[in-house]
Amino acid sequence: MLTLHDYLPSGNGYKVRLLLHQLGIPFRLVEHDILQGGTRDPDFLALNPNGRIPLLQLQDGSLLAESGAILCYLALDSALWPAERFERALTLQWLFFEQNSHEPAIAVARFSRMRPDGPHRADLPGLLERGHAALAVMERHLAGRSYFVAERYGIADIALYAYTHVAHEGGFDLAGYPNVRAWLERVAAQPGHVPITWKPN
Amino acid sequence: MLTLHDYLPSGNGYKVRLLLHQLGIPFRLVEHDILQGGTRDPDFLALNPNGRIPLLQLQDGSLLAESGAILCYLALDSALWPAERFERALTLQWLFFEQNSHEPAIAVARFSRMRPDGPHRADLPGLLERGHAALAVMERHLAGRSYFVAERYGIADIALYAYTHVAHEGGFDLAGYPNVRAWLERVAAQPGHVPITWKPN
Repeated sequence: MLTLHDYLPSGNGYKVRLLLHQLGIPFRLVEHDILQGGTRDPDFLALNPNGRIPLLQLQDGSLLAESGAILCYLALDSALWPAERFERALTLQWLFFEQNSHEPAIAVARFSRMRPDGPHRADLPGLLERGHAALAVMERHLAGRSYFVAERYGIADIALYAYTHVAHEGGFDLAGYPNVRAWLERVAAQPGHVPITWKPN
Repeated sequence: MLTLHDYLPSGNGYKVRLLLHQLGIPFRLVEHDILQGGTRDPDFLALNPNGRIPLLQLQDGSLLAESGAILCYLALDSALWPAERFERALTLQWLFFEQNSHEPAIAVARFSRMRPDGPHRADLPGLLERGHAALAVMERHLAGRSYFVAERYGIADIALYAYTHVAHEGGFDLAGYPNVRAWLERVAAQPGHVPITWKPN
């Protein structure tokens, strides 16, 4: 069975839990409290030297880090990963956009507000500006589109949904992004959708 | 013929130019000076609403952004993209690590020093701390390894080489990272290697 090292409030971890649930893949969850340094202790760093969740452990012990890489690995051969070469490239484009332009602003702003004593409070104005720029890119792309790639729900949607649907917890008002809000509703209506803190029984 | 929208000092753009050269794929280069706002004008934003280079344009006009996605798209069917499923996943893991943990610190520190009047000067201490953390992850992974994945040169090495080999321009001293320095030399010795500001004739 797969083992997922995770922290339930994490959007990066949620991407993987949501995908596993929608693919019907059973897994064992090992929770680490990142607010208490749970991914910075020597035992965890031996598994992932970058000290981050999610971290996927295969039956044979192999370890895979980075939510985007885990999504691609698990979705292969499923309907959530396109069959066509350029559509696959566009899926990766949005996964990298999320990790480079979106998550570093929106997830960090949210994390900062979860930890009022944390290190990023002074960065909040800049994080909000960068996060809104990322939301504006999404809003523009979703004009006339139902999903991010090829008009089908897939892992690009899962990756972008994770922190967008909780962006308000980072101080982002989505009122000015009607296309994004309609897309959030479409994603939440997918079969097998679960909330961010869902975990297997 | 492929068209690459790029800015020669960019490490993200360099990844793509280096790969295209090593794969022997001809392309037309269109340069945009990002320091002069060349990717924020309406003409460029119509091509990439995120306002970033590199941007690849196919013969049929299709557009692909994000260096990591472009590397995967171009390297498919080449020796620089592994054939085995888990090795592919590990390649993606390092590409996402680069875009989420490495580039946002090391490239931004370098960019900040290229633009003394720029917005990131006050962030430099934090960028240096995060960049050194990323370099330490690389140093640990390269202990006993020649390349990042499967002991073969590939696009994970290209992606991580781009900003690591110019990290000193961002104020990073690589003296404490002997494994990283030896790997940089191995990458630079690969057939078809070209320097960061290389462009086709």
